[in-house]
Amino acid sequence: MNSRNELNIQVSDLDARLANLRVDDGYALGAEVEGGVVNLTTLAAAIGLSAPRDIDDLLQNGRAPEVRAVLEAIKSRGSAFVVTPISDISFAPLVTRPEKIICVGFNYREHAIETNTPVPKAPPLFNKFNNALNSHGGVVHLPTRVARQFDYETELVIVFGRNCRDVSEDDALDVVAGYTIGNDVSARELQTATSQFLAGKTSDGFGPVGPWLVPRGMVPDPNALKLQTWVNGTIRQDWNTRDMIFDCRKLIAYASSVMSIKAGDIMFTGTPQGVILGEKAPREERQWLKAGDEVVSSVEGLGELRVKLI
Amino acid sequence: MNSRNELNIQVSDLDARLANLRVDDGYALGAEVEGGVVNLTTLAAAIGLSAPRDIDDLLQNGRAPEVRAVLEAIKSRGSAFVVTPISDISFAPLVTRPEKIICVGFNYREHAIETNTPVPKAPPLFNKFNNALNSHGGVVHLPTRVARQFDYETELVIVFGRNCRDVSEDDALDVVAGYTIGNDVSARELQTATSQFLAGKTSDGFGPVGPWLVPRGMVPDPNALKLQTWVNGTIRQDWNTRDMIFDCRKLIAYASSVMSIKAGDIMFTGTPQGVILGEKAPREERQWLKAGDEVVSSVEGLGELRVKLI
Repeated sequence: MNSRNELNIQVSDLDARLANLRVDDGYALGAEVEGGVVNLTTLAAAIGLSAPRDIDDLLQNGRAPEVRAVLEAIKSRGSAFVVTPISDISFAPLVTRPEKIICVGFNYREHAIETNTPVPKAPPLFNKFNNALNSHGGVVHLPTRVARQFDYETELVIVFGRNCRDVSEDDALDVVAGYTIGNDVSARELQTATSQFLAGKTSDGFGPVGPWLVPRGMVPDPNALKLQTWVNGTIRQDWNTRDMIFDCRKLIAYASSVMSIKAGDIMFTGTPQGVILGEKAPREERQWLKAGDEVVSSVEGLGELRVKLI
Repeated sequence: MNSRNELNIQVSDLDARLANLRVDDGYALGAEVEGGVVNLTTLAAAIGLSAPRDIDDLLQNGRAPEVRAVLEAIKSRGSAFVVTPISDISFAPLVTRPEKIICVGFNYREHAIETNTPVPKAPPLFNKFNNALNSHGGVVHLPTRVARQFDYETELVIVFGRNCRDVSEDDALDVVAGYTIGNDVSARELQTATSQFLAGKTSDGFGPVGPWLVPRGMVPDPNALKLQTWVNGTIRQDWNTRDMIFDCRKLIAYASSVMSIKAGDIMFTGTPQGVILGEKAPREERQWLKAGDEVVSSVEGLGELRVKLI
């Protein structure tokens, strides 16, 4: 931590996939290593270093240099640390207290066509509240008292690493810490009951994000990633982030032109075609998601995000 | 604090108007007394009692019994405490870290008519992010780089006092801590550029709320309150919360049927007619709000919320 370079380290520069771990007393910061995941928070304490207490702390408080130091210590000491197999990890939502969960509607050309939506002039922005945050391996409690038409939407999620406002398209990716996967779970009759989507988007647990925060330096181009969804093992979405109407740079420039963005905020960037809402059959006859279903969302290089509906 | 009754005290039971004060090191909890405002946070410390550190702490952590005790101490000791005249108070946004700022669109019959909007089947819910929070006496920086059609919307704001889900209309007011005034400042071309309102609603400072949290017990009926707006001293809105399409009970029941609500969350309940968006002249010819304007919003019994545009 004594060179100027080290002090300037950003989350985007880190070279490990990071996770928000669920532990007895809350959350902890994890990093993927060979054979599994290391709890950086407890490891740092054990070897006399400091580390963020979780992903939000890392992002909101600029603690990447500390993480780099712990990761270096792991490399130099080899297998002297506890590595938990991924299958034994309890993931938390990737973030748990962002100031903003910005969402974008109708941002893929084919999805706009399947839902009979004119290609928009600007990105339609809406939100989820933090009650919607959910984790890889989590369960989504379907609010069957008020809805039946439940649907999935696999999305690339941008994780912001800097406070910013009025960012140009050219500079837009500089404010990105990294990327993760999101499932913009939707209750379609609530979403379409009024002109505003929010009611159909923010039921508790309707925003799974994770499992990894993949630092930006490990993702060469966020608009060249295969994106897929499986429901109970059957593939349902299979497309590429290349088809976005407003690519990541344009989305960041637009959102930051109307509001300040904070480090730790996240943005769901929209879903491609293949959702149940886009099917041709009358709405009542479609096989909407139901209790017992398992949805797996994947984005190239970012892993797989799995949730179960109950 | 030794009777069961005292322990059950809720914010809604308190008998003073409360404020979030801006102080050197952040925020503090204030209460209106004769002649001005008392800083309950510092007063409590000085007399060996404890008190919330601000309004969010009071609401989110159920600390009303402590506030009651400090208010009792003030009454019993008379004028032995520092009272600051209201004109010298620096108000903070009424809340600064709610999990949710829920907003309702088109919730007054006459406003739906003036904007040519069909009366909705359900309350159209959208949001502001916390970057929009602003205070009584605050300034709104107009984002003139991206918009020109700036408008006011005076609203009754519900402040939630309990964590809840699936609240019935009958029980709805039980989860309310109290009420305040909000101005749902809007950039109309951003609001209407896409189907979703958010971009026009959440520029920094576009959500002034305050000056007081008026405990529910001091507001006999939230749907029988005169509501008014002045721009540079000229009255522009003059209506009554009685005209809501979905009254406070219905709004709370609906919102809580689709998402969990947390103590400390707030809800803007919609604005009546009289906004610039509703005027008959072509949009380009209207006198939209501009730098230098002062907007005063009032709701009967809740005081006046004043902001300046720059």
